[in-house]
Amino acid sequence: MKDDSFRGVYPALTTPFRPDLSLDVEGYARLTDAVIRDGVHGIVVNGCTGESWSLTAEERKTVFETAVKAAAGRVPVVAGASGQSAAEALAKIRQAADAGCEIAMVSPPWYVIPGPEEILEHYRKILAATPLPVLLYNIPRRTCVSFDVATVDRLADHPKVIGIKESSKDWGLLSSIIRRTRDRISVFAGYASFFGLAALCEGAVGYIDSGTPVFGAKSVAFHKAATTGDLETARALQADMERMLAAYFGLGTFPASIKAALDLLGRPGGPTRDPIRPLDDAQRASLRKVMMASGLIEQRAA
Amino acid sequence: MKDDSFRGVYPALTTPFRPDLSLDVEGYARLTDAVIRDGVHGIVVNGCTGESWSLTAEERKTVFETAVKAAAGRVPVVAGASGQSAAEALAKIRQAADAGCEIAMVSPPWYVIPGPEEILEHYRKILAATPLPVLLYNIPRRTCVSFDVATVDRLADHPKVIGIKESSKDWGLLSSIIRRTRDRISVFAGYASFFGLAALCEGAVGYIDSGTPVFGAKSVAFHKAATTGDLETARALQADMERMLAAYFGLGTFPASIKAALDLLGRPGGPTRDPIRPLDDAQRASLRKVMMASGLIEQRAA
Amino acid sequence: MKDDSFRGVYPALTTPFRPDLSLDVEGYARLTDAVIRDGVHGIVVNGCTGESWSLTAEERKTVFETAVKAAAGRVPVVAGASGQSAAEALAKIRQAADAGCEIAMVSPPWYVIPGPEEILEHYRKILAATPLPVLLYNIPRRTCVSFDVATVDRLADHPKVIGIKESSKDWGLLSSIIRRTRDRISVFAGYASFFGLAALCEGAVGYIDSGTPVFGAKSVAFHKAATTGDLETARALQADMERMLAAYFGLGTFPASIKAALDLLGRPGGPTRDPIRPLDDAQRASLRKVMMASGLIEQRAA
Amino acid sequence: MKDDSFRGVYPALTTPFRPDLSLDVEGYARLTDAVIRDGVHGIVVNGCTGESWSLTAEERKTVFETAVKAAAGRVPVVAGASGQSAAEALAKIRQAADAGCEIAMVSPPWYVIPGPEEILEHYRKILAATPLPVLLYNIPRRTCVSFDVATVDRLADHPKVIGIKESSKDWGLLSSIIRRTRDRISVFAGYASFFGLAALCEGAVGYIDSGTPVFGAKSVAFHKAATTGDLETARALQADMERMLAAYFGLGTFPASIKAALDLLGRPGGPTRDPIRPLDDAQRASLRKVMMASGLIEQRAA
Repeated sequence: MKDDSFRGVYPALTTPFRPDLSLDVEGYARLTDAVIRDGVHGIVVNGCTGESWSLTAEERKTVFETAVKAAAGRVPVVAGASGQSAAEALAKIRQAADAGCEIAMVSPPWYVIPGPEEILEHYRKILAATPLPVLLYNIPRRTCVSFDVATVDRLADHPKVIGIKESSKDWGLLSSIIRRTRDRISVFAGYASFFGLAALCEGAVGYIDSGTPVFGAKSVAFHKAATTGDLETARALQADMERMLAAYFGLGTFPASIKAALDLLGRPGGPTRDPIRPLDDAQRASLRKVMMASGLIEQRAA
Repeated sequence: MKDDSFRGVYPALTTPFRPDLSLDVEGYARLTDAVIRDGVHGIVVNGCTGESWSLTAEERKTVFETAVKAAAGRVPVVAGASGQSAAEALAKIRQAADAGCEIAMVSPPWYVIPGPEEILEHYRKILAATPLPVLLYNIPRRTCVSFDVATVDRLADHPKVIGIKESSKDWGLLSSIIRRTRDRISVFAGYASFFGLAALCEGAVGYIDSGTPVFGAKSVAFHKAATTGDLETARALQADMERMLAAYFGLGTFPASIKAALDLLGRPGGPTRDPIRPLDDAQRASLRKVMMASGLIEQRAA
Repeated sequence: MKDDSFRGVYPALTTPFRPDLSLDVEGYARLTDAVIRDGVHGIVVNGCTGESWSLTAEERKTVFETAVKAAAGRVPVVAGASGQSAAEALAKIRQAADAGCEIAMVSPPWYVIPGPEEILEHYRKILAATPLPVLLYNIPRRTCVSFDVATVDRLADHPKVIGIKESSKDWGLLSSIIRRTRDRISVFAGYASFFGLAALCEGAVGYIDSGTPVFGAKSVAFHKAATTGDLETARALQADMERMLAAYFGLGTFPASIKAALDLLGRPGGPTRDPIRPLDDAQRASLRKVMMASGLIEQRAA
Repeated sequence: MKDDSFRGVYPALTTPFRPDLSLDVEGYARLTDAVIRDGVHGIVVNGCTGESWSLTAEERKTVFETAVKAAAGRVPVVAGASGQSAAEALAKIRQAADAGCEIAMVSPPWYVIPGPEEILEHYRKILAATPLPVLLYNIPRRTCVSFDVATVDRLADHPKVIGIKESSKDWGLLSSIIRRTRDRISVFAGYASFFGLAALCEGAVGYIDSGTPVFGAKSVAFHKAATTGDLETARALQADMERMLAAYFGLGTFPASIKAALDLLGRPGGPTRDPIRPLDDAQRASLRKVMMASGLIEQRAA
């Protein structure tokens, strides 16, 4: 069921670790505060950007609690809560609800390659028991399975489904989902640097994006321009975002480059956990150049 | 070099044949006139929609002349003029120029799979000798080779390049080309039923589209809504177009379904030539239902 | 390091569950015994065929112990032991070693999409500590990441790497890996119904295959024919296997059809766990027809 | 209908041009003679390796006549004779028959993307009128359309269909076609450097291959080893061929590297025609190194 207030720019947060790779709780709170001060409309925690696969159950609890406390009611916290079984997803959703998160983001099971009916059944079990509204999450390049339009269409009728984050990189699929379900659920685009303007014009309500903690207020300005008809401003910002993300995705394994960019900005980035390696010095130097060229950091500061 | 008047809705016309499969010159003139009365900004002839592969050199000449004569100066005629060699393309371009066409649409060579440098060289030879401005045409699902952004970027600086029609179905590529070149050339999207609104919002100036002769004035209204900021109208029309095209592409081999739809509308459709088979009766009945549901033909008329 | 005795037909076993979906330990032992009586050279447990994602740590321990006990030293037991981190993989490997399994089968981390250097590093950590020899496992359609030839080539020099199971369905990759590494490690093909004969002729030592518990002695006869130069027999059996597997893969989500086929043969199949649904009655009837046509079950018996 | 003598190694010949890009008739005869002296079982002319797209009708006639005259009855000449329509294909087939070619190789129409029924109908028209037996040719990376197994299966019953050259690079498709039709038609593999041994073991009768004029007698020895059960010799030669072809395909646009390799061997290679550019000096130097490493040319000679 659509909630008209669930819209806008939702950065997917990286999870800061200390040099010894333990969870950097203080850094997490600072990062959360920084993006909210940038003007974002909500945050997403414990997603793939957050290296969710590397967190223990205890750490996940801490992440949820830290984000909620740092958000301090200013914006909603969306909690990554996927599982290979409905039971695993529900356990994470309950953790999120207990911590005060407002929405649970749930992808289909990975590795298993279920069919459409099995995906539907997986969600029905979750929806029957979830204490939180659910944001569907389509990320086939990681789960090896994709929603089809018909399955999203059926799930969109369920009162506990509040929206979808669609990250297939397939405009045919994303735009069809927008056209078919936007009157019933909030559609968010992934990969905003390529799909942001198109999706917002087609009727998406916002985007969930790992680049926003780096772009900061620019990302919020982009969303505003795109949703208030100022297309020329939006086009220019979209081009800026593409240039930056092209640099990101070419450097290391996601989200190592995001963390390095945050380091360069003086925001809590920090190392990545296994199996992902942090950027090396040459990659950091290359990233610094891109960020200076984009005006994100000053010549001097670098 | 960009020509600001080169923008809008450019239907790609089918080539009407008589029952004996000879060229239906009178039908061609009538079809041309019909779409111009719908309000389109130009027409494209002898493209893949026009079964260009089946036309003899003499027939191609007749098609160019018929279209120019029927357009009667109301809108420009874009002539499909691709070749596996620069010489073959130039021969077609000269035919088009002699007939009074205003722009030549040229894809990279098919079947050969040239590299980026070879594609560039192919165009340089054509551009050095062409009497007409050239519209680049990217249609990898037929040519088995795609432009990359860098090649389009380099060609966009050439004074004889007036624009590009981008039909890769890859939003990453289409949107990058729009962002990178729209200040220098006119970018037209293909597959308008999926990419129209997104492309226009991103900065494309129009689209080249085989569905417009069926949609008629609806397609022109869609373009107007999308380019004047009336997004809600544009979204609704985009959804209509997707529904219709989904039905088209599922029926027979393109462009058999377009011709059958024109027949149902009382416009000159007619049979297809080898190797493409016309829709059979069951497919036509199914198409009729879709068109009635869309309001394109009346219950009674069907 | 290659072990010349590590070769042949290694069925990947399904995990039998009781009607209440608890682990069917007795069924597991019976299934293990049945395939060993068919003449297989080893067995693989807790792989994707075994719905490994659905097993608790305790159940996994039971599976390892049950298989080892049922095998009773007749053939080696290969234990699926992949993890998203080296630590997770090592924990499973130790479980397997404690139970008496002889080889650990380890895929790259799923969902994370690591680069080649990160994959290498992931294995180096595992190889530095593993008590068991390691069988690399390439299954990109589930993990969303593939080994490249160079990475396998480097890992093939490590004394703890005993082989690879290659299931990319890409003959260019599989055959290159065979040619490049078969003198140092044992290469096993996946999808034996399509790749079995080709891989064995190219120099693979065997295959790991979910169809063998259904084909039974036929699969062992196929391997023997292919590796002793009796190509005509091998070709006929390969064709049989393709026909059967084509029927399998069209029915339900893997491995539901394998379990249904086992049920039809009177072997322990049983239900699947969430999110995978068992075949419905129509699917079972259709499978029964295919199996009768193949002579796997008798007309009467059906 | 299968002809048991239609089997073995059929090199696809490049078309030698003089420095002024005119047809090098004498070079063509010399190249033909050279490969026949290597021991090949037949030759294929006017295929994609032969830059067929660049030949005029008159040149094509000369190519057919030159090859037949140079072959002098020692081996059969297979003539590339595809068309976008049945009429175009038949015109080329008649040219080939008049010149004394024995078999016509015909791909589905390119660019048009016909459906299976339309492909079938295209061939039925050709088969009803052809004076030569027809070798089906599947090359989807150039035509943008692929045969499916069912269509080949139906065509295999036609008495005028003598075989298929399958170049999809998809082992699932190639092996299924072998299994399904090898008792009725001669199946030849393309891309012999990757698929040769696998295809011959599965039941293909030979391969059609652009690398053979460079490999020379090595290719014939490979075929002999693979078809007489000498797998170890065959595997070693297959590995040699892969290494060489990997070098080829990385250099320039096909078949520029083949022509450069022939030049290095002292065989008639020569320049390529538009839009394909010959290798540059750096690429030639790199190719020379690969060929020296493979022992195809001597250190001294280079």
